[in-house]
Amino acid sequence: MRVRGRHYRSIWIDASDGLPRAIDQTLLPQRFETRTLPDVESVAEAIRSMRVRGAPLIGAAAAIGIVLALREDPSDPALERAAELLLATRPTAVNLRWAVERMRSRLDGVSEAERASRAAVEATAICEEDVEVCEAIGRHGLEVLESAARSKAEGPLNVLTHCNAGWLATVDWGTALAPIYKAHDAGLPIHVWVDETRPRNQGAGLTAFELREHGVPHTVVVDSAGGYLMQRGMVDLVLVGSDRTTSTGDVCNKIGTYPHALAARANRVPFYVCVPCSTIDWSIEDGVAQIPIEERDPEEVRVVRGSTNEGETVGVALFERGTPALNPAFDVTPADLVSGLITEHGVYPATAPGLAELEARLGSAPGPGASEVGAQRGVDAWD
Amino acid sequence: MRVRGRHYRSIWIDASDGLPRAIDQTLLPQRFETRTLPDVESVAEAIRSMRVRGAPLIGAAAAIGIVLALREDPSDPALERAAELLLATRPTAVNLRWAVERMRSRLDGVSEAERASRAAVEATAICEEDVEVCEAIGRHGLEVLESAARSKAEGPLNVLTHCNAGWLATVDWGTALAPIYKAHDAGLPIHVWVDETRPRNQGAGLTAFELREHGVPHTVVVDSAGGYLMQRGMVDLVLVGSDRTTSTGDVCNKIGTYPHALAARANRVPFYVCVPCSTIDWSIEDGVAQIPIEERDPEEVRVVRGSTNEGETVGVALFERGTPALNPAFDVTPADLVSGLITEHGVYPATAPGLAELEARLGSAPGPGASEVGAQRGVDAWD
Repeated sequence: MRVRGRHYRSIWIDASDGLPRAIDQTLLPQRFETRTLPDVESVAEAIRSMRVRGAPLIGAAAAIGIVLALREDPSDPALERAAELLLATRPTAVNLRWAVERMRSRLDGVSEAERASRAAVEATAICEEDVEVCEAIGRHGLEVLESAARSKAEGPLNVLTHCNAGWLATVDWGTALAPIYKAHDAGLPIHVWVDETRPRNQGAGLTAFELREHGVPHTVVVDSAGGYLMQRGMVDLVLVGSDRTTSTGDVCNKIGTYPHALAARANRVPFYVCVPCSTIDWSIEDGVAQIPIEERDPEEVRVVRGSTNEGETVGVALFERGTPALNPAFDVTPADLVSGLITEHGVYPATAPGLAELEARLGSAPGPGASEVGAQRGVDAWD
Repeated sequence: MRVRGRHYRSIWIDASDGLPRAIDQTLLPQRFETRTLPDVESVAEAIRSMRVRGAPLIGAAAAIGIVLALREDPSDPALERAAELLLATRPTAVNLRWAVERMRSRLDGVSEAERASRAAVEATAICEEDVEVCEAIGRHGLEVLESAARSKAEGPLNVLTHCNAGWLATVDWGTALAPIYKAHDAGLPIHVWVDETRPRNQGAGLTAFELREHGVPHTVVVDSAGGYLMQRGMVDLVLVGSDRTTSTGDVCNKIGTYPHALAARANRVPFYVCVPCSTIDWSIEDGVAQIPIEERDPEEVRVVRGSTNEGETVGVALFERGTPALNPAFDVTPADLVSGLITEHGVYPATAPGLAELEARLGSAPGPGASEVGAQRGVDAWD
């Protein structure tokens, strides 16, 4: 999507040197900078430090990391080392694992001589498919938004979103923001409530940045304001992303999603989750019991980063270092609070039968297969 | 309660000059400083800027402000000017109005010569009664906590609180924290989940400070974590304060209280509200429809204050100045989500009949009457 009028992806291969570039998201919204990722270690560091974040983008970045590792050393042990390094960066994101497994399985039996180029084709396919998937989520989500707008007498459609499930979290378009971009581009009057999303403020920092650069009207609120806004009829629909969805429709997403879902149910506000099929974990049924929740460094809660009057980015502490803090990164929204799952294949009920129907449609492959178009573009980009 | 081992109140009359002192709460937890409030203008400024905050403390401070005004000029117009100045500082706090009206009515018909001293007696009575009220809330709340602890097999009782309804928000003891102090002092093992309470971080800044200074085990989390903690069985009980409670039991409190109440209901966690009777607005029945919600400066959302590594307190911006933001300060928790109201006269159901029973007990007076003890102490303190 657009930054200062120019089209960007969150990660891409630069034609000058064949190396990946990514936007350093820890610097946004204060500074817009891109980084070269020359090796798998730099990719792992970028994921771990959340310079590169968002479930779909993490998957794409991991696939690119495998390519970089195999260029240095195409052996089996090198592939294993790269896979382990990448998998250890973030335990919750299911499509980090999905992307690494896909790379592994496609490289199985490929000779060392051909491995790096075959990996490049596959990684590029993953990136291109992600763009296609998000664009399709945008199209299906647009229908949901248009339907909601039709039932509204006047004023713009007010959508609340949480965290950043925008194009910065994917390769392009985003998941929860894709329908919003589609609606805005189609001329549907829309306004987005952006919550700041403590502790890392991806809403205030990234979502507000994205929407401003694309020209979509929006207002920032604290995370706690969701209930108030819904109670006062100021939200027509909630749209969020998902890091991991169970086969029964439970949704694991950024901490604070579940309270918004509870408020939406209490105030009869539709609550939709935008879900690329690659983030569905078909092996589990109970999100609360079965999804391990990543506990991040409590320093993220204690120290808030922002910019001073002089434009310098600094961290300031909210409380003393000795004060105990807990920093769970995700929560689980039970399926019964979800109005529907907006996937690249359409909108499905967040129920076991709904997901079974979706799974049947996908066939036996756990993620989308490599399309010819994607593979072709992959060769273009890397060669 | 205790700060560095010494007992403090949040506001008091200094014996050296007969002038009020208050803790500057905007500097906490980085710096513990007290301020002299020499005139009604400085009291109004302290309330407006939230150096002095918390519904009960605002009422006490306003009463003291009236005394200061009458010392300068005991005329009717001066009394009116002081009342108007104080009432305009914070529109939501019902006991700001209650305290000002009480001062006005007790001064009605009092000669100008006697006014300042009569006002001093009344203001001191308001302060002493507040301490008595909070201590009584602590005693009744302790019974609720003891009962919850008895039904728990092992481990400390985990209480979640929101914002700061501690002794800093009152003259002493606090409302929601009073039962916690009572429990801790009585040897009941207790642990408090303290949420940061964006945008002004009264939880991370003030509640964590209070609990640390008093030695009560606690852990800071982001506001969004409440649902997660309750879903995982990590919260046994929620205790919050209230800025304004309707005659039907709807509770207006710091933004984010309502989502916690929804999560408590969904996870069968008892949700109690600690309510001094002076904060009950007997004239209204529907909190959502009838309570005007104060919208504070959006700069509070944009700029976070904290301390640098060098110990300097600075504000850092989370997003650009041009980005729209909304800053509603309170939300309303409907009565049906409230397990009970812990008042100075015992625990009452958050229902119209429950509050009618409480009102009957209070008699015709809208707030607690001046006790002999309070009046006596008042003369001591001011003279």
